Amino acid sequence: MRLATLRTGGTTVAAVAAGGSWAPLPHRDVGALLRDADGLATARASAGPGPLPAGADLAPVVPHPAKVVCCGHNYAGHIREMGRELPAHPTLFTKFADTLTGPADTVTVPGLAADLDWEAELAVVVGAPLHRATRDGAAAAIAGYTAANDLSVRSWQRHTGQWLPGKAFDATTPLGPVLVTPDELDPAAGLALTCRVNGERVQSGDTADLVFDAPALLAYISAFTRLSPGDVVLTGTPAGVGAATSPPRFLADGDVVEVSLQGVGVLTTPIRIEFEECA
Amino acid sequence: MRLATLRTGGTTVAAVAAGGSWAPLPHRDVGALLRDADGLATARASAGPGPLPAGADLAPVVPHPAKVVCCGHNYAGHIREMGRELPAHPTLFTKFADTLTGPADTVTVPGLAADLDWEAELAVVVGAPLHRATRDGAAAAIAGYTAANDLSVRSWQRHTGQWLPGKAFDATTPLGPVLVTPDELDPAAGLALTCRVNGERVQSGDTADLVFDAPALLAYISAFTRLSPGDVVLTGTPAGVGAATSPPRFLADGDVVEVSLQGVGVLTTPIRIEFEECA
Repeated sequence: MRLATLRTGGTTVAAVAAGGSWAPLPHRDVGALLRDADGLATARASAGPGPLPAGADLAPVVPHPAKVVCCGHNYAGHIREMGRELPAHPTLFTKFADTLTGPADTVTVPGLAADLDWEAELAVVVGAPLHRATRDGAAAAIAGYTAANDLSVRSWQRHTGQWLPGKAFDATTPLGPVLVTPDELDPAAGLALTCRVNGERVQSGDTADLVFDAPALLAYISAFTRLSPGDVVLTGTPAGVGAATSPPRFLADGDVVEVSLQGVGVLTTPIRIEFEECA
Repeated sequence: MRLATLRTGGTTVAAVAAGGSWAPLPHRDVGALLRDADGLATARASAGPGPLPAGADLAPVVPHPAKVVCCGHNYAGHIREMGRELPAHPTLFTKFADTLTGPADTVTVPGLAADLDWEAELAVVVGAPLHRATRDGAAAAIAGYTAANDLSVRSWQRHTGQWLPGKAFDATTPLGPVLVTPDELDPAAGLALTCRVNGERVQSGDTADLVFDAPALLAYISAFTRLSPGDVVLTGTPAGVGAATSPPRFLADGDVVEVSLQGVGVLTTPIRIEFEECA
């Protein structure tokens, strides 16, 4: 099953994909659907699809998660090529819900954030409460998978040892386009994850290469904080970010970034950098 | 004016202190009061105080902030005694709202989090929306000040370079007891901030020693993320944490930690460590 959150008429509505079109659901977004114990059953039993509402576009697939936890340093090939040991624990930080943006939205940053870099990621959406979960318990609580672009302002990320500022600019994390349930998609079996900038492929990863896969991440996180339906976990990015090239390469005003996750879809993000005019 | 959030009958209610007692307000907590544009005026005009409702105790003064941002390495004396340079930027990380707990609540952690350490802090509560604020704009948007104990699980904080896991255990951050408005309290003029463990003083700081004071922190944070009424910023802790003593000292089951902030009050926190029994 493939679920999305549609923007329509100043509000949003959850919808399930059926064939080439969409059936709207009674929930205002996919997060609300997951917080309703009968939400997934309602979606599975939904009536035949209607057309996409006129003027609708896609919101972040979960627009208002209570918690967004992100992992860094999580692709084994990239870690090994950098000459590092595989980590014993996942490197975790958070994002605020208002960092999320829709899968076709333009991302706008101020000129002070002009060293903007791409990070194609697999994202996991939680479907059931998790507290001190085992690996099996965590696996059973996964609602599904989606894609994210953890666009990062490298200078602000490196102001200190804690990455928050560079990861938390307003509306800089495209999430979507759809949530795909685990019966249709298995990241552990390997999904191609790529990033293109103006059509040029810059990242090419495989989700089978994750050091900490989705169940491992959810189990570790649930040891210290409770996870709830609709919470989102970003699993890290493979090799090929702009900051790691020589010389470093960052996004320019007018660039278009495309993150593609096999079986999920594509995030297409025009970049707008707003330089202030001098008086 | 001194505001608190009282727990009573399974819910909460905001209240204003008047003389030795409390006047209940129409808002469910101090966060809701601050999100109401007329909330502070309502509090100032509130009728004469009644007694504290029977069985009421204190909730975190803002129980459900949308954002909790915390600063580390922010007391100049402690930074200099460690032989470090004063930082150019604040070191920031986040907490989830469910890390907060009441000013007299017992804090319980699992045995795997037994290296629990204290951090007495001044906390700032936001009173107006802030986006790319100047220092003056940030100062004008401060609703008031309260105290926090950023109890930290040092092993989990150090699993990787990112501190989140050690800072995010459920209900481990006492916040309160009251919010004091800026007309009654000026941290820049110097407020004594102390921490005691079982009566022994272990931290003794002065809020005039902050490298990044409250307006500076809010202005910096608002450069990358929007702040809203009820958001909370923890400003960092002075010298004297347990991890920095030789040998390191951590809290034991049954210890009582008291954080005292001049003009605000005391957080009294009994510590409970739940070791699992072996089968």
